[in-house]
Amino acid sequence: MRALVKETAGPGMVVRDVPKPTCGPNDVLIRVHYAGVCGTDLHIWEWDAWASARLKPPVVIGHEFSGEVAELGREAAAAGLLAIGDLVTAEGHIICGHCLQCRIGEGHLCRRTQIIGVDRDGAFAEYIAMPAGNVMKLEGIPPELGAVMDPMGNAVHTVLEGGMVVGSRVLVVGCGPIGCFAVGVARAAGAAVVIASDFNPTRRELASRMGAHVTLDPAADDVVARVRQLTEGDGADLVCEMSGHPAGHAQAFAAARLGGRVNLLGTPSRTTEVDFARDVIFKGLTLYGVTGRRMYDTWDVMQRFLRSGQLDPRPVITHRYPLDRMTDAIEVIKEGQAGKVILEIGS
Amino acid sequence: MRALVKETAGPGMVVRDVPKPTCGPNDVLIRVHYAGVCGTDLHIWEWDAWASARLKPPVVIGHEFSGEVAELGREAAAAGLLAIGDLVTAEGHIICGHCLQCRIGEGHLCRRTQIIGVDRDGAFAEYIAMPAGNVMKLEGIPPELGAVMDPMGNAVHTVLEGGMVVGSRVLVVGCGPIGCFAVGVARAAGAAVVIASDFNPTRRELASRMGAHVTLDPAADDVVARVRQLTEGDGADLVCEMSGHPAGHAQAFAAARLGGRVNLLGTPSRTTEVDFARDVIFKGLTLYGVTGRRMYDTWDVMQRFLRSGQLDPRPVITHRYPLDRMTDAIEVIKEGQAGKVILEIGS
Amino acid sequence: MRALVKETAGPGMVVRDVPKPTCGPNDVLIRVHYAGVCGTDLHIWEWDAWASARLKPPVVIGHEFSGEVAELGREAAAAGLLAIGDLVTAEGHIICGHCLQCRIGEGHLCRRTQIIGVDRDGAFAEYIAMPAGNVMKLEGIPPELGAVMDPMGNAVHTVLEGGMVVGSRVLVVGCGPIGCFAVGVARAAGAAVVIASDFNPTRRELASRMGAHVTLDPAADDVVARVRQLTEGDGADLVCEMSGHPAGHAQAFAAARLGGRVNLLGTPSRTTEVDFARDVIFKGLTLYGVTGRRMYDTWDVMQRFLRSGQLDPRPVITHRYPLDRMTDAIEVIKEGQAGKVILEIGS
Amino acid sequence: MRALVKETAGPGMVVRDVPKPTCGPNDVLIRVHYAGVCGTDLHIWEWDAWASARLKPPVVIGHEFSGEVAELGREAAAAGLLAIGDLVTAEGHIICGHCLQCRIGEGHLCRRTQIIGVDRDGAFAEYIAMPAGNVMKLEGIPPELGAVMDPMGNAVHTVLEGGMVVGSRVLVVGCGPIGCFAVGVARAAGAAVVIASDFNPTRRELASRMGAHVTLDPAADDVVARVRQLTEGDGADLVCEMSGHPAGHAQAFAAARLGGRVNLLGTPSRTTEVDFARDVIFKGLTLYGVTGRRMYDTWDVMQRFLRSGQLDPRPVITHRYPLDRMTDAIEVIKEGQAGKVILEIGS
Repeated sequence: MRALVKETAGPGMVVRDVPKPTCGPNDVLIRVHYAGVCGTDLHIWEWDAWASARLKPPVVIGHEFSGEVAELGREAAAAGLLAIGDLVTAEGHIICGHCLQCRIGEGHLCRRTQIIGVDRDGAFAEYIAMPAGNVMKLEGIPPELGAVMDPMGNAVHTVLEGGMVVGSRVLVVGCGPIGCFAVGVARAAGAAVVIASDFNPTRRELASRMGAHVTLDPAADDVVARVRQLTEGDGADLVCEMSGHPAGHAQAFAAARLGGRVNLLGTPSRTTEVDFARDVIFKGLTLYGVTGRRMYDTWDVMQRFLRSGQLDPRPVITHRYPLDRMTDAIEVIKEGQAGKVILEIGS
Repeated sequence: MRALVKETAGPGMVVRDVPKPTCGPNDVLIRVHYAGVCGTDLHIWEWDAWASARLKPPVVIGHEFSGEVAELGREAAAAGLLAIGDLVTAEGHIICGHCLQCRIGEGHLCRRTQIIGVDRDGAFAEYIAMPAGNVMKLEGIPPELGAVMDPMGNAVHTVLEGGMVVGSRVLVVGCGPIGCFAVGVARAAGAAVVIASDFNPTRRELASRMGAHVTLDPAADDVVARVRQLTEGDGADLVCEMSGHPAGHAQAFAAARLGGRVNLLGTPSRTTEVDFARDVIFKGLTLYGVTGRRMYDTWDVMQRFLRSGQLDPRPVITHRYPLDRMTDAIEVIKEGQAGKVILEIGS
Repeated sequence: MRALVKETAGPGMVVRDVPKPTCGPNDVLIRVHYAGVCGTDLHIWEWDAWASARLKPPVVIGHEFSGEVAELGREAAAAGLLAIGDLVTAEGHIICGHCLQCRIGEGHLCRRTQIIGVDRDGAFAEYIAMPAGNVMKLEGIPPELGAVMDPMGNAVHTVLEGGMVVGSRVLVVGCGPIGCFAVGVARAAGAAVVIASDFNPTRRELASRMGAHVTLDPAADDVVARVRQLTEGDGADLVCEMSGHPAGHAQAFAAARLGGRVNLLGTPSRTTEVDFARDVIFKGLTLYGVTGRRMYDTWDVMQRFLRSGQLDPRPVITHRYPLDRMTDAIEVIKEGQAGKVILEIGS
Repeated sequence: MRALVKETAGPGMVVRDVPKPTCGPNDVLIRVHYAGVCGTDLHIWEWDAWASARLKPPVVIGHEFSGEVAELGREAAAAGLLAIGDLVTAEGHIICGHCLQCRIGEGHLCRRTQIIGVDRDGAFAEYIAMPAGNVMKLEGIPPELGAVMDPMGNAVHTVLEGGMVVGSRVLVVGCGPIGCFAVGVARAAGAAVVIASDFNPTRRELASRMGAHVTLDPAADDVVARVRQLTEGDGADLVCEMSGHPAGHAQAFAAARLGGRVNLLGTPSRTTEVDFARDVIFKGLTLYGVTGRRMYDTWDVMQRFLRSGQLDPRPVITHRYPLDRMTDAIEVIKEGQAGKVILEIGS
């Protein structure tokens, strides 16, 4: 089958013919229809420090996808939950099921997590084999949206964690695709005011289309002052930090209200200086680090949001390419003009 | 009456005769028996950056105390909850009751908080007037212990926040008086393993006497490795950061388990470099900044702990001085040989 | 001033001239514009067992209202939060502030609660005096809606308690005014599916207008089977029991999913036989009894819902009468053709 | 192998030679050392309405046990968590892993649960095969105690659910073995006052030995009045209802404080009349139905309690019999003179 492969320890990826994956007894073989391109894939393309420390080429890239069930392993078939031809998506974190975290409902933090497209072969390919427990039926969710439920799930996790969103004033710092999803999720989940901040006007426009009441440009606006103004002087009840930048952290901590919450998803590439006394202790803030998606509470809420129409993430998907135009996909992401970019692989 | 007063903008304090405070309609006038000396008082004594920015001399110092009711304002008397002669202690944060935080059960974060002995006259005096709502009867709690319930309440808040303590492995970073209280509170609240870390052997000894199963010396022990070893390789479920030092933060973040919680009470005097990706996001940590005591959930639990005998904080009280020997009290604290130091004022 | 008074221990009420209330130092005197008529007022009108055991005539009736600030007591003025002419509503439960419940954030369960219009003079009058802490500015919320925020707050409390509403399937049992508010609140708070059940077609129609996805008639529909069908066989995540009827309880317990939650607001006039083994223990259900409104978390969320437009309760208000036509108001409620009935008192 | 078998649809059980269970690829074959006799076994022995509706004879009885690993299936061995000879116990609820409840961390409510000794062959036998995921190493916990961790886990679940136990006043209604465990768990988990109520003096004595501060006899004491007296007039913060009797329910609801919580574990054999208005709604109570053990949060806490010595359940184990003296075990339980009865099967 054709697949996009990180073949050697260095920049770039190539389309190659590779063997179709085998389908173990507990596995589901999925014919991939659509796949989402993630910032992580960009890191892998560029072969940065993180990528070179983590990946062992050759590996098929890609961890966000949807497709149809092509084959079921013996145990997977016996469970009776899936049938050949079902349209599905999947959680890309494959977890051990045995560690403390797996046992107490924190499987998203499993210490032996394997991520598809990173630690094992991924979804930028005609077929992928997944453990049956990771696979979910789309049942009415359009397959294009199924391909971006992994990052959308990151947004759901970020917005819902701590149970503060209903009726609250939410600030989303950073309007990349997951930030834009977070705007829509916050609206769907009953936030009263959603403010989104980004330097990039294209991204602010996407955030508006996803339902942000106000968008702010840190280059032109005093974000903290504007948030105060929009929140009766209180500050934001909940801040979703999606930028991963020290300036984003500073904005998040300063804009959160006394007793507020900052959920951090954006992955920083360097350290941040934190004034814990002023910004965390005297403010009584709660900070929370978001990894992946709660398995599977996050998915259940997300599926209901999508099926009910509460959340319509389609504005975020701005570009589509076939598998062999990954170079163009990477280019448009680097230019900062894209929301979510998806690859059209099969159908 | 005699009182310990910060008279001028500079180091030191003096014992002076000052007018007895007036008792307003909602107030209780309390004859002080014992008062606790806090690190905050040391900052005020030394007139550091924080103190010189916050205090407006002259002001009577001291915010931890117990005593007996000497006079009741009209409204306070009408409420019928207190009587002349009752032995009492009091919450030293006087809050507005009207702001968002006060209204939603987060009064400890009231934006108009006035702290006795800092923003208004305090407890190192023969008498103090307090709003009736801040005053609590000791009812069987020894008055000496009543004098340290303010900092003990900080420890209760730190240990209980997040609801993770029952059956868990707790690391207390920093064994000053509040750290030592935290050790005892963690034991009282059902922690399975309590590990305490401090450079100072006197403090480690106090932590042991308060019930720490293991004490560690960061100068000699690999704290993170030892915590792993004592927790089946998991790391600590809950870390109470009481040092306020960047090295303490680093220890806390590294020693917490995946999905663990770090409650931060120690007030840093400078910033800390945080690797959010490695230490918070990929670990799924929750950080929480502890200010004061939940009003009054924290006090209710603390009173029950003390009355039931679950918590016996007496080992932490190591020194006693009369009011006019504050210089000695400051000295013994600075030497690092003290647990909690109390002033014997009346009786 | 004119007021609607329960003058004697027996059925009915009369409009009388009574003295304007005095405004104590902590009080706000409010000129009433609109007031809502509640089922409780019907009980008082009819002088049933509950009413005759609780009320001590003569008492001015009415506990739901909005109006404008006419006078401020000395302390209330000093707090600086309200000004003459402000449009306001108020929490009708006046609490002690000193009991365990008041101290730990459960003031809605204060054991010394006094309810206006029940235990002390109420709002079916030209003026009412309220403690300043109970009074909230409308700030953009239409005064007619301000008059029904008390029962709407009951609905907010019922829907939000337990933090289960976001993305969930909600069943509202009983579509009187508070049930209809609950439908709207569930939609505003991010429920994915809202199902409402009532025998009365007028009420089902109101529930639809408030946003119910499906309405059911227990006389014609198999409610439990239909709920299952609408929830992929699971049952409802959250049931809001607003009927107070044993048949409503049975429906609630049977329709809730395994691990679901039933929040009970409807006040029963008799006992219910409960099969705890089948309906609660083996299902792992949580039941919660709703009293009043959380003070003041519930109000803050409600105010934001109304100001943001997430919640538009206007369809529920079906009838308006002047104060002296209370007999007509009572009549229309008894006929079961009304949603919320309001009295137009001043302006 | 020898096993205690419910052979036919009627009272009694018999010791029989039956085939040793086969050990599937994901299974662990365990040589049973000790097994606990549960009230459920009594129902099965007596063949009451519940038993005759649920069981399909022949079936090996018994669901509480400990033993040593005798054989590991292929997959179970590959997971590397268990080795031949390991001393273990196991969760007796075998769940599907695929339903909503399993997916969102509520596996104890899995709708396809199979209980060993009820729905499939159980532990009153020389060997039992269990799915590897259900098996836990004892690692220092005495095997006798391992045999009663299933019911002890019920007690842990009952006491901890809702997070109210630390520093609280707990009433345990009904002091059978699980009630007595609950007393010990409440003490271990930081309850300030533990009150236990039972008609049976032997059981009250066991509750005292497990750490109850006060025991009450409903035949002689006014339980509700005494609880009030022991809780400063408040009532109990948390009630653990372990009796399953309507009188126990009444006691629980009346003795709980305003805003308190009643966790119900005792399985009633008939309905209870509940005055929801007086006992639940106006009191703001939360009721929760306890099924099984949270998988596996409950087990993790319990293991730590036992290993730390916080919880010593040995006083509850009062009788020991070999497998062929089940008749005597049943007899002593029916006489009401027993705490926990265990069968000594292997070693």
